[in-house]
Amino acid sequence: MEVTHFFEMNSAKKPIGIFDSGIGGLTVFKEIRKILPGENLIYFGDTARVPYGNKSKETIIRYSKEITRFLVGSKVKMIVVACNTASSMALRTLRKEFELPVFGVIGPGAMSAYKKSNGGPVAVIGTAATIQSRAYSLAINNLNKTGEHIEIIEQACPLLVPLVEEGWVYSDVTAEVVRRYLKPVIEKKPSCLILGCTHYPIIKKLIVKEIGKTAVIIDSGKEVALELKRFLTKNNMLNKSGVKAAEHFFVSDAPEKFKILGENFLGKKIRNVKVIRDFFMIL
Amino acid sequence: MEVTHFFEMNSAKKPIGIFDSGIGGLTVFKEIRKILPGENLIYFGDTARVPYGNKSKETIIRYSKEITRFLVGSKVKMIVVACNTASSMALRTLRKEFELPVFGVIGPGAMSAYKKSNGGPVAVIGTAATIQSRAYSLAINNLNKTGEHIEIIEQACPLLVPLVEEGWVYSDVTAEVVRRYLKPVIEKKPSCLILGCTHYPIIKKLIVKEIGKTAVIIDSGKEVALELKRFLTKNNMLNKSGVKAAEHFFVSDAPEKFKILGENFLGKKIRNVKVIRDFFMIL
Repeated sequence: MEVTHFFEMNSAKKPIGIFDSGIGGLTVFKEIRKILPGENLIYFGDTARVPYGNKSKETIIRYSKEITRFLVGSKVKMIVVACNTASSMALRTLRKEFELPVFGVIGPGAMSAYKKSNGGPVAVIGTAATIQSRAYSLAINNLNKTGEHIEIIEQACPLLVPLVEEGWVYSDVTAEVVRRYLKPVIEKKPSCLILGCTHYPIIKKLIVKEIGKTAVIIDSGKEVALELKRFLTKNNMLNKSGVKAAEHFFVSDAPEKFKILGENFLGKKIRNVKVIRDFFMIL
Repeated sequence: MEVTHFFEMNSAKKPIGIFDSGIGGLTVFKEIRKILPGENLIYFGDTARVPYGNKSKETIIRYSKEITRFLVGSKVKMIVVACNTASSMALRTLRKEFELPVFGVIGPGAMSAYKKSNGGPVAVIGTAATIQSRAYSLAINNLNKTGEHIEIIEQACPLLVPLVEEGWVYSDVTAEVVRRYLKPVIEKKPSCLILGCTHYPIIKKLIVKEIGKTAVIIDSGKEVALELKRFLTKNNMLNKSGVKAAEHFFVSDAPEKFKILGENFLGKKIRNVKVIRDFFMIL
């Protein structure tokens, strides 16, 4: 992706805007913070309308545009769609309608899976909307120039988001639900498994226990953070000010719940959470 | 509640407006249809923002007002809030801000529990928001003029809505989740149990199996339908036109999914489902 004239001289100091339907995208935020310690970050969680995974394409596009408009208004230098559902449904529209660079999690995750699978079957787990979109299949097939067929196994796991959101992370019930969803996946002996939902890294241990160590686990959040670093470096957009990086969190509802649950996702205290209810009316 | 001047001469023929965060309210719709076969009914399911049970009071009030405004614009003669979360959070505001009669599920459910409990402990299960509001406790204590203390056991069961929405109605996993939620409830030996969420009648069998037959099960949806009939009869507002009653369904997203899932709730084919995305901009 080429940088447009959007950037002013001091654009490197501008924050990166990251959004998700709720708290799941904090696993992506965490990876970005780890890999890019100098960047100012703004996170938006759409907790008034969470979850996205069982909603329609049209609605998810509308919500994603509203949030992107809000982040653009907050003078971000780029957008990271830290939600697989929104990435699979809305990325194309956002890139067409907004001038700044927009990154999603699907492309980086698909690239990593393509490289690591060595032609073996690739499994993808995600929300109903992500799986229905076939976004990962399409991305992997686009990368594949060998002419050899790559088998892709796609499995929707709609109950995993509510289980994680309720904090049943170490529960036997969650283990049993994971087992049921992964049963048809494991039968196909995948060489790698894409965690195609930003909530899933939280229950990675349960997933690994089920699928065994023969399949490489791909965390799309980590992959997008790495791609971001390459992009910022290449385009001379890294924030090298040396000033301690700022972090701001916005949610459309229930900031207290976001704080409490989000700390489990982020592994540290969350400060600066602001609730902003009419964000879609602002611009 | 007294009838206001809102009603015109032919107001009896006007439809009853029923709303819920999604499909759960269809269990209330079903009871109303059974008890009031001559009434025209309009149902609104807010599927673009479902669920409500984990959202804040302020947001639930805003959503409920937007939907009520839409239904008032559709010329309904009254409103039934067929959602325990919205009833517990928004009923007072709706009654204050709108002129037409507004019914919720909490009052009728609490009344039935008060009568049937014979002073024994009353258990309430519901979403996090409903339980946090303590709406059932407050309503039962308001009814109780005996001076005797009534023990009320309140238990949030946030995972039951997603399990029902995913159709895991006969699953061992759902049975296990019900068992875990009900364990502390059963220990208190309640004389009755209020199904304080319109999704729960769908898994009533699992709940009865767990709690046994010593506790009377109260379905608030059925109770509000009975109260509605009393109110319409008393105020001469029953639709006696003899014309086959009409049914219209509106959703804010994903009408096809609503049709398919909704048929399980309603026990019959659903026709006339319209998606209306900008309903909150209309008035």
